[in-house]
Amino acid sequence: MVKVAYLGPRGTFTEQAAISYFNKNVELIPCHDLPEVFMAVSTGFSEFGVVPVENSIEGSVNIALDLLLESELKISGEVELRIEHNLIAREPIDLSKIEAVASHPQALAQCRNFLRRNLPKAELIEVGSTAAAVKAIGENNYIAAIGTELAAKIYGMKVIAKNIEDNPNNFTRFLVLGHMDASPTGKDKTSIIFSVVHAPGSLYEALGVFARRRINLTKIESRPTRKKPWEYIFYCDFEGHRAERLIQEALEELKEKTILLKILGSYQRARL
Amino acid sequence: MVKVAYLGPRGTFTEQAAISYFNKNVELIPCHDLPEVFMAVSTGFSEFGVVPVENSIEGSVNIALDLLLESELKISGEVELRIEHNLIAREPIDLSKIEAVASHPQALAQCRNFLRRNLPKAELIEVGSTAAAVKAIGENNYIAAIGTELAAKIYGMKVIAKNIEDNPNNFTRFLVLGHMDASPTGKDKTSIIFSVVHAPGSLYEALGVFARRRINLTKIESRPTRKKPWEYIFYCDFEGHRAERLIQEALEELKEKTILLKILGSYQRARL
Repeated sequence: MVKVAYLGPRGTFTEQAAISYFNKNVELIPCHDLPEVFMAVSTGFSEFGVVPVENSIEGSVNIALDLLLESELKISGEVELRIEHNLIAREPIDLSKIEAVASHPQALAQCRNFLRRNLPKAELIEVGSTAAAVKAIGENNYIAAIGTELAAKIYGMKVIAKNIEDNPNNFTRFLVLGHMDASPTGKDKTSIIFSVVHAPGSLYEALGVFARRRINLTKIESRPTRKKPWEYIFYCDFEGHRAERLIQEALEELKEKTILLKILGSYQRARL
Repeated sequence: MVKVAYLGPRGTFTEQAAISYFNKNVELIPCHDLPEVFMAVSTGFSEFGVVPVENSIEGSVNIALDLLLESELKISGEVELRIEHNLIAREPIDLSKIEAVASHPQALAQCRNFLRRNLPKAELIEVGSTAAAVKAIGENNYIAAIGTELAAKIYGMKVIAKNIEDNPNNFTRFLVLGHMDASPTGKDKTSIIFSVVHAPGSLYEALGVFARRRINLTKIESRPTRKKPWEYIFYCDFEGHRAERLIQEALEELKEKTILLKILGSYQRARL
């Protein structure tokens, strides 16, 4: 069976993303952190890896960006999930009886209005992940956790309130890592990393390669490379597959205008 | 005395940034979260606010970017701090005797090599902030925390190992919020937010405004606006002060090429 490493522990959003991409016909292997996921795929221990790369509220997962720069793996797919938070407890319970709510600080923050309205007196306990919070309920009937439906199922708990997040527009994008690009589908995206000399106009020159060909950029993000203070790295996604002639020509021209160009892969676009 | 609101609790890196910027001649007011800092300044409760906006490893603090978009406050300064982690305990203790180390998950991750080499058997406990970890040591002699020197001082603890971070190139950038731009110094930066129609080449056109004037961009970051799926927002910093004629002209031309242009302020550049 195909093995897929992902950012654990069991019951995380990343596990949900892996299940939604691979349809359960794979063996899912939870990893402790992102370097472990990359390592699992690089060494051939697993065929694929799934990692979060970007959240619409919290921004990029920069350790994922750093690992993409260092690794030789390819992006072979992407998944977008809407982040839905649930209030979870051992047994159905009147909300006013809940004494404490545990979760990751981001999850607590993202459900602030719900908590203020419905559990104004509950103590908020910050823990390392939403999955750890669900696990931590243990035998206690008066502690609730904010976490995924999947975590409730895994740890034998009950969802007592669904979709308690304040902002319904909270999405996370996950990458599927592998050893090859995906085949063209006509609805593809290509991800690259490039850097230009630190001089006025150098980014403008590089973007001209895409603008002149009417290639649509879907993302551009800069990061300073602290090791080389006069250089910047850009993470860039655009529409099209590098098997297409237009994209090939753009990448060839871009190579001449950049001091670093790394092609992370072409893969089918995920759009909810 | 001038009041400065900042992201608390007491003993955070943001408090260190506020102290380094204002030289202690102000009354520092810890806030519970970033919206509270913005609110304190907007309502006039405090004259200034200090918030983290970007870390060289973890990336942008997106809630800060969102608040900048919504708020009418100006950026009137910036601070850069190198992130130094310390091992903190009640009393000097042989490292091999430490049974557990508490900190924010990011701090634990950023000291992973140190912990593996020196405290391979210690249990790692994830809590909500480095300051909370230092506070949590309490009366226990065998628990250590990873936190700031300032937190050790505030909570009456001892630094037992300094600079235990694995990567010395870990910087956080903080913004000083106020009601006005700072005066020009000749070493200034201007921050803006703009958005362009979602069409190939529209970002390229906007950047041309800077490229043709040889204005140096120091940062550009895109964020999708989930409310308007065909539009993107760019956060952009560049060298120069908007009191300068060259910058004024650029901003006027940019206004014609964008569908949103918000000037966050001009302020003196921080460079370590």
